[in-house]
Amino acid sequence: MRNLDQHTITQEVIDRFADTPDPRLKEIINCLVRHLHDFARDVRLTEDEWTNGIAFLTGTGQKCDDKRQEFILLSDVLGLSMLTVAMNHAKPAECTEATVFGPFYVEGAPHYDNGGDVANGAAGEPCDVGGTVRDIAGHPIAGARIDVWQADSEGMYDVQRSELDQLQGRGVLRSDEEGAYRFHSVLPVAYPIPTDGPVGALLQATRRHPWRPAHLHFRIEAPGYETLVTHVFREGDPWLDSDAVFGVRQSLIAPWVRREDGGYALHYDFVLNRIGAPRT
Amino acid sequence: MRNLDQHTITQEVIDRFADTPDPRLKEIINCLVRHLHDFARDVRLTEDEWTNGIAFLTGTGQKCDDKRQEFILLSDVLGLSMLTVAMNHAKPAECTEATVFGPFYVEGAPHYDNGGDVANGAAGEPCDVGGTVRDIAGHPIAGARIDVWQADSEGMYDVQRSELDQLQGRGVLRSDEEGAYRFHSVLPVAYPIPTDGPVGALLQATRRHPWRPAHLHFRIEAPGYETLVTHVFREGDPWLDSDAVFGVRQSLIAPWVRREDGGYALHYDFVLNRIGAPRT
Repeated sequence: MRNLDQHTITQEVIDRFADTPDPRLKEIINCLVRHLHDFARDVRLTEDEWTNGIAFLTGTGQKCDDKRQEFILLSDVLGLSMLTVAMNHAKPAECTEATVFGPFYVEGAPHYDNGGDVANGAAGEPCDVGGTVRDIAGHPIAGARIDVWQADSEGMYDVQRSELDQLQGRGVLRSDEEGAYRFHSVLPVAYPIPTDGPVGALLQATRRHPWRPAHLHFRIEAPGYETLVTHVFREGDPWLDSDAVFGVRQSLIAPWVRREDGGYALHYDFVLNRIGAPRT
Repeated sequence: MRNLDQHTITQEVIDRFADTPDPRLKEIINCLVRHLHDFARDVRLTEDEWTNGIAFLTGTGQKCDDKRQEFILLSDVLGLSMLTVAMNHAKPAECTEATVFGPFYVEGAPHYDNGGDVANGAAGEPCDVGGTVRDIAGHPIAGARIDVWQADSEGMYDVQRSELDQLQGRGVLRSDEEGAYRFHSVLPVAYPIPTDGPVGALLQATRRHPWRPAHLHFRIEAPGYETLVTHVFREGDPWLDSDAVFGVRQSLIAPWVRREDGGYALHYDFVLNRIGAPRT
């Protein structure tokens, strides 16, 4: 150990973790150390670059609070979030695909009856959303818990508005006996992910745009089924092919239909995967 | 982009960074994305593990303030710091070796004349330290700026003691015309790296001890020479072969000699590398 060099140090570090009691933790750390060291060697990381990296990660952590999650944002723009989703949600093609969770979910959203107005004062063009929650065979799933959350007409989530004293544009519903759900809200619009932190600085330095196509977030949970975390994206949005967080799936794109009486309507049916069903 | 899977997403993310104007930044990010994604795929990272990872990194950042640098500590215990040092300080064997910077350096340490007492009230057994700063040919380097910092008899740095209103156990000196330096201080002792944060939790979960062998930190800067960041480790320390941050080099170990009048004496000579000298 007293004469380690840039090559021999990696095995020494791994050996130091040899007594880790949890085999999975040990596996993850060993793999992390190998890739972290390989990364540093492959790019021949300089000490100034190391210092900048430490400062970047520190700033990313310090930007986080109970309403802001900059590390999720970083994971999102590096594609790690979507990669993790893709690895963990192999399922039959008939099921609704999953996508990124994002940093804007909050616990404690208000509960609404079907037909309720989850906008709760959020600005935007009126919109009715409805559909069903079913299994692969087409049987309705009654009583599924449906979390929905979205940005307002300025592309802002309620938690980004410090002046608000209530949650807006988010709510919890239950599917009815026919598996149906419906709620009022406002039209989602495309928005930039927050750019006032280290992740914004990274996007700027790399000339990447911060935009996400307009979408609604859903999280749908029902006993016996895999919990589904997904979005429905608005058809025709100009950012569908360059979502800053790589979350778009073709199957999750749907039309918000302009109604004659003004306002919009979205119909979207979800299909959940039974726990223990064969994976494809 | 609308149908990326866990394999094709990596190239898409890299392509998204294609317009990065700084070629070095682009190279680093491309390499980072490849290794980050390979890591996630190699361990088949679950969503719960991803969530735990996000929470760990967030906590690491939030533990940092102007006196605590938990991300440097994380880099240290994962061997990344020492790897980076090793890659960037190839130099002739006669030169003093470099080691980790550590998280306890602070700007603005008091300046002392040679012979001054850098302990400045820090508790510990008295100790005299001295030696020379020379080049490879043995010529003295006069006027080198020597930063020294160390823990006290309880293994604590001044910045870890919130009750202190002055800096202790650290100072800045200049080598004299003969390249010589000397100062009074206290005997350094082995100490555990801070364990009250996420890095401590990691060490505990992996059954790693947090100890570092007793050492003095030095940073030596002189015009025309590579700045040297290093330690001198205390011969005989029981942690020399398992330093928590992998910083020990055999050539940096020296005896603190017990004197007849009480107290200790350390003699250590530094050899700096001329900028532009051939590397080995």
